[in-house]
Amino acid sequence: MKVTIERSVFLKALGHVQSVVERRNTIPILSNVLLQAEGSILSLTATDLDIEIAEQVTADVETPGAITASALTLYEIVRRLPEGAQVRLDTDGDNGRLKLSAGKSEFSLAVLPDQDFPMLTAAQDGTTFTMPAPALRRLIDKTRFAMSQEETRYYLNGVYFHAHEDDDGPCLRAVATDGHRLARLNTALPDGAASMPGVIIPRKAVTELRRLLDDAEETVQVMVSESKVRFTFATLTLTSKLIDGTFPDYQRVIPSGNDRILKLDNKDFSRAVDRVSTVSADKTRSVKMVLDADRLKLMVNNPEAGSALEELSVDFDAEGLEIGFNAKYLIDVSHQIDGETVTFKFADPSSPTIIYDEEDTDALYVLMPLRV
Amino acid sequence: MKVTIERSVFLKALGHVQSVVERRNTIPILSNVLLQAEGSILSLTATDLDIEIAEQVTADVETPGAITASALTLYEIVRRLPEGAQVRLDTDGDNGRLKLSAGKSEFSLAVLPDQDFPMLTAAQDGTTFTMPAPALRRLIDKTRFAMSQEETRYYLNGVYFHAHEDDDGPCLRAVATDGHRLARLNTALPDGAASMPGVIIPRKAVTELRRLLDDAEETVQVMVSESKVRFTFATLTLTSKLIDGTFPDYQRVIPSGNDRILKLDNKDFSRAVDRVSTVSADKTRSVKMVLDADRLKLMVNNPEAGSALEELSVDFDAEGLEIGFNAKYLIDVSHQIDGETVTFKFADPSSPTIIYDEEDTDALYVLMPLRV
Repeated sequence: MKVTIERSVFLKALGHVQSVVERRNTIPILSNVLLQAEGSILSLTATDLDIEIAEQVTADVETPGAITASALTLYEIVRRLPEGAQVRLDTDGDNGRLKLSAGKSEFSLAVLPDQDFPMLTAAQDGTTFTMPAPALRRLIDKTRFAMSQEETRYYLNGVYFHAHEDDDGPCLRAVATDGHRLARLNTALPDGAASMPGVIIPRKAVTELRRLLDDAEETVQVMVSESKVRFTFATLTLTSKLIDGTFPDYQRVIPSGNDRILKLDNKDFSRAVDRVSTVSADKTRSVKMVLDADRLKLMVNNPEAGSALEELSVDFDAEGLEIGFNAKYLIDVSHQIDGETVTFKFADPSSPTIIYDEEDTDALYVLMPLRV
Repeated sequence: MKVTIERSVFLKALGHVQSVVERRNTIPILSNVLLQAEGSILSLTATDLDIEIAEQVTADVETPGAITASALTLYEIVRRLPEGAQVRLDTDGDNGRLKLSAGKSEFSLAVLPDQDFPMLTAAQDGTTFTMPAPALRRLIDKTRFAMSQEETRYYLNGVYFHAHEDDDGPCLRAVATDGHRLARLNTALPDGAASMPGVIIPRKAVTELRRLLDDAEETVQVMVSESKVRFTFATLTLTSKLIDGTFPDYQRVIPSGNDRILKLDNKDFSRAVDRVSTVSADKTRSVKMVLDADRLKLMVNNPEAGSALEELSVDFDAEGLEIGFNAKYLIDVSHQIDGETVTFKFADPSSPTIIYDEEDTDALYVLMPLRV
């Protein structure tokens, strides 16, 4: 393999693929990136056996070939090369090592054979559709905070994507929950997506995909089967295994009868919660909301640190209510609300509460109260 | 105590003092800041028993008094109050707790009596002098990277300040070393400083002092005794215990006969070292410098990761030399050099090497070579 590639092109591609590589690997080749040169294309592939990220970039290929070398070392070297440098990769001679040269810099890097590099094949019998990149970004942005981190309920450690149809018509829906809170987002159902299976995309894949989507152009091609999902956009492909489990029937925890409605300024609310929570106990971060006619009191009482009280003028004319929440969860949801006003729908102090933005009904959040 | 204070003034002062407070304390009152109101002044004091930071700010004192409350909680509350808020502190009523109110926010905070707050008294028999704040900042900036982190040689865990006199006349000198590298800085000896004892200011005090010096005006008053040092500037006072130990005779490790002189572009040098060190073994970070007439080769050879070679055109006409250094130490020193050119003075591959900037001879660095 003999290839010359512009430093900034190589760096961007290495940046895209290297982040999937785990920093500690018991299988040495998983630390490596697979480099394949053919035609006028250099392909880079990295994997952790669950997720594979591949990118194809333009390069000047003198001799085709393939090799694997440390993804992190390559990234750190290329990052440090001067802007505008031409990077030359060469596997001939030097005992089969990968020679990387640019200007007066010369590196000889340890390699492993390309044949040993594990590839994730996407299922061929899946559903394929195309959707706008901004819509996919939004599905992830507004739900991922609610993914669980607990290993025991592994089927909650991801975002559940599925086609849904109700009175409002069909949609593509993303749901995440950790049992304490839930986020549900709808977007227009892409052509051809109606038959897709419901799939749980694991946390790391969600994070990697979201990072790569920063560089996505208009549309993303999605291929989804029972066991794998593949996203293709620009020159990038991300393939991920799915979480092999059943996502709970989340509709059951979304109450429909909540009729005590609170509306208030979203920024005022999150700032006030943030202030009073400074004295809350680290563990529960519990904040009490006390509602009377057009008045919300936020209260924290921590015998050790002290107490806090903040009053807000709000729009509320239902029966008074005292209800507690985890301050962090309140703030997390508040940060998802883009509009000026946030709306709460309460049933009673021990039942799930709905939070949403009246001007953006594609998004819905549910919080379980704390006993206070 | 009843005090009203402008939020931004209170926040800045809390920011200054709270950082000395350790996050975990077995002695509860050490988590607190001492607040004392008298005349038109609110004084804030925080300590970890080794270092004390105090600040005096203007406030509207209705009733004088004193109390202590959690420094971190106060800081986090005041930080979250809206800009321009007037903060009211009140210890009357509410079971002696500290009531903090601003707008519609109200906090009641746990307190401990001001009489129990430990104060560090500065020695009265010390040397007192005044020096320019930029000179003190520079003494710290250019030496602190060389402080040791090893607990065993505790007397190296700080910067050694002392008055020095040699053929070039008298100076105030700061020295730090960890046994592998040494940094020595001179500045004009302030009036009255000639009689000061040599003192080792501990790492944390150096760090805190440097942080506070960002807000220093023109001059700093220094009071130094055998056991303590006090810096006073603007409305701030930092008092620190000194390291009770003898700083080694650092002059002995600064060679005087090194006659193989290398001059090269400082930025080119540090970038090249940074590049080749990407393949060096994590532990030693060893880089070999191979010098011939007007040519420097930087070489790294790591059997696991690979090898690197970089060539630089330099100014060198002494006998050829191969010498190894820790790449991180080379880069640290290079970052201290403000001029375009860095100068090395070598003796042989196993002896200390001098590094300096010919246009700034107040600063001198010594590196011990590695065996490569």
